[in-house]
Amino acid sequence: MLVNAHLATLDGADYGLRENACLAWRDGVIVYVGHDMAAARATLGGAPAAEIDAQGGWITPALIDCHTHLVFAGNRAPEAEQRLRGVSYADIAQAGGGILSTVRLTREASEDALFAESLPRLQALMHDGVACVEIKSGYGLDLANERKMLRVARRLGRETGVTVKTTYLAAHALPPEYAGRADDYIAAVCDWLPVLHADGLVDAVDVFCEGIGFSPAQSRRVFEAARALGLPVKCHADQLSDLSGAALVAEFGGLSADHVEYTNADSVRRMADAGSVAVLLPGAFHVLRETQLPPLDAFRAHGVPMAVASDCNPGTAPLLSLRLAMALACTHFRLTPEEALRGATEHAARALGLHDRGRLAVGQRADLALWRVRHPSELCYWLGGDLLQTLVLSGDGAAG
Amino acid sequence: MLVNAHLATLDGADYGLRENACLAWRDGVIVYVGHDMAAARATLGGAPAAEIDAQGGWITPALIDCHTHLVFAGNRAPEAEQRLRGVSYADIAQAGGGILSTVRLTREASEDALFAESLPRLQALMHDGVACVEIKSGYGLDLANERKMLRVARRLGRETGVTVKTTYLAAHALPPEYAGRADDYIAAVCDWLPVLHADGLVDAVDVFCEGIGFSPAQSRRVFEAARALGLPVKCHADQLSDLSGAALVAEFGGLSADHVEYTNADSVRRMADAGSVAVLLPGAFHVLRETQLPPLDAFRAHGVPMAVASDCNPGTAPLLSLRLAMALACTHFRLTPEEALRGATEHAARALGLHDRGRLAVGQRADLALWRVRHPSELCYWLGGDLLQTLVLSGDGAAG
Ligand SMILES: [Zn+2]
Ligand SMILES: [Zn+2]
Repeated sequence: MLVNAHLATLDGADYGLRENACLAWRDGVIVYVGHDMAAARATLGGAPAAEIDAQGGWITPALIDCHTHLVFAGNRAPEAEQRLRGVSYADIAQAGGGILSTVRLTREASEDALFAESLPRLQALMHDGVACVEIKSGYGLDLANERKMLRVARRLGRETGVTVKTTYLAAHALPPEYAGRADDYIAAVCDWLPVLHADGLVDAVDVFCEGIGFSPAQSRRVFEAARALGLPVKCHADQLSDLSGAALVAEFGGLSADHVEYTNADSVRRMADAGSVAVLLPGAFHVLRETQLPPLDAFRAHGVPMAVASDCNPGTAPLLSLRLAMALACTHFRLTPEEALRGATEHAARALGLHDRGRLAVGQRADLALWRVRHPSELCYWLGGDLLQTLVLSGDGAAG
Repeated sequence: MLVNAHLATLDGADYGLRENACLAWRDGVIVYVGHDMAAARATLGGAPAAEIDAQGGWITPALIDCHTHLVFAGNRAPEAEQRLRGVSYADIAQAGGGILSTVRLTREASEDALFAESLPRLQALMHDGVACVEIKSGYGLDLANERKMLRVARRLGRETGVTVKTTYLAAHALPPEYAGRADDYIAAVCDWLPVLHADGLVDAVDVFCEGIGFSPAQSRRVFEAARALGLPVKCHADQLSDLSGAALVAEFGGLSADHVEYTNADSVRRMADAGSVAVLLPGAFHVLRETQLPPLDAFRAHGVPMAVASDCNPGTAPLLSLRLAMALACTHFRLTPEEALRGATEHAARALGLHDRGRLAVGQRADLALWRVRHPSELCYWLGGDLLQTLVLSGDGAAG
């Protein structure tokens, strides 16, 4: 049980602030939030619980990163450097750079090596308050290597205690062996899905729907394969151009449309009707120096929940901090710090189809972040730094 | 002695790369850089030294943050939040916000409280590789409180082992008791300087020369007071408009002109002639969403060294990571990662008038950063994360 804690519960307006409150949990689930210490103790019944004096520290729900590509081998720092030295993207691609270089290295890596290389990235996110993370495949691009990536993602969850939701994103890029045969590749992507799903490796299905990715018609085929298995879908949608990718997600009742810089007003309405979340990825916007803002006011007007994620990936968003993505959302997208925090908790949970976390309320999972701040707005204010005091995963197993 | 180390010495072109090299030091000073292990051992004579196998890890000179305001009380996160909620800057200022709120809280804080509040910020910078930091006064704005800030800065150096260079920046803002009497305030600033200098608290003198700060004529008076004491000068110059602040610094043979977004071509030439460094502060550029780029090509063409600093301050740059400032310099200013790294080592040292650090070369101080990277360009590539393996301050006192 935490006592003398300031809570940003996100349950209600103005951060759902509850100052000098106590918070109790049992079997990993919150059983009390409020100011009555005796009542809090009573909810624990006979369960033994240490009383931790938070000494006026701030507690939020642990952060949830609902869009990452953090399993990969190698990185593209030298390529980023070449670009800053004036080498053209075409020359880099011709020299084997770009996403296909990550595919090559990820294919070459053993499962253990891929795990060892990815673990520090997840630990960096945890170090900044993340207790739940989505991890996509999409650098394997064949059955064996997509499986390897998803197995690594599952293992990351087992070994860290972080909740990992896996997403099958074989439709991320066209592998070299399918050059010029995108439709054939999509057929293969659809064939592999039930195999990996039978292995228990797939929680959701994603497609990179873009002029430089896959077409809406191809994306639809993948979504139909997902629907046949009862798997929820999401989409890299409308990042660089408007292909109505967000509307396609909505048509399938999808969890989220992600990026959504170019999403049009009609698509926003369809997302609202379908209950799909808009996942904002300000890290890629920042790194790519984009200028097209997502239709933020339309999302607000239509009640489309906005999540914020790191997009951690080696090409367009080498972010190792969700808090930094929140700060970038405030700077670039003018989200308020409260919107950014809800985007990395309450709305991120919803983008993953999770209803048991993202707020501090009775019945929610006791995934908690204790911060060294005076006000939760500081989470989006400081750029860098080490604000996390303690991360509690599912009550750390004990009553508290 | 470090063996099997990849060195980015910054001594020579292409990062001054030396792979699989060894590095030895004695009495805190580098005595060997090269590939001959026997020769390295010989330089240590009889001095006992552990041989640390760097296992192919990368070593750079420890980072140097040559422009910070990291001693202050309180923070302005709630104010940043109000702005994002649509409250105007004028309304915030009228409610006591802005820099004067930091002045009020800094004046109210005891010296111990101010130290305790500032220490975690310096530790955050160290955690990201910084071994030497400049710290400015400028939130006291009277003799006693400027002294208090500078004493805290000195104490931060003593208690952490980080080299701290102090800068007197009483000409940062007009305190309320001098409202409407800027010239009188500048007279007081000039009077306080010799007092604080006699206390051993001042290594350099700075002025905020700007339409919303102090005029070039007022800046000149402060610089003349500095020159009378033999103290080097620097200037917050040409950040929001071109007042030829950089040329003024050059006229006084100053260490650096800082910000310099609006610096004109003539000023650049004068900086080159004077040997003044251009200190780029991409954190403030980012937070303020500025669009005017510093004259980068002119600096390059005229051989003006470009440093990069965090500008850590509670208003316009709440940065707790110099590496993040380096990454922002690459994204916003298109510096190459090598330029950014030199900017936070070699050129930052020069901006502080230090010639004994900033490169890995014989005779330089053994301030070293060991990184978990595959190439030094990664220091500017990853946004966030924990890349530092070990920070060595002056050889940690031993031969090595
Ligand atoms: Zn993505
Ligand atoms: Zn400054």
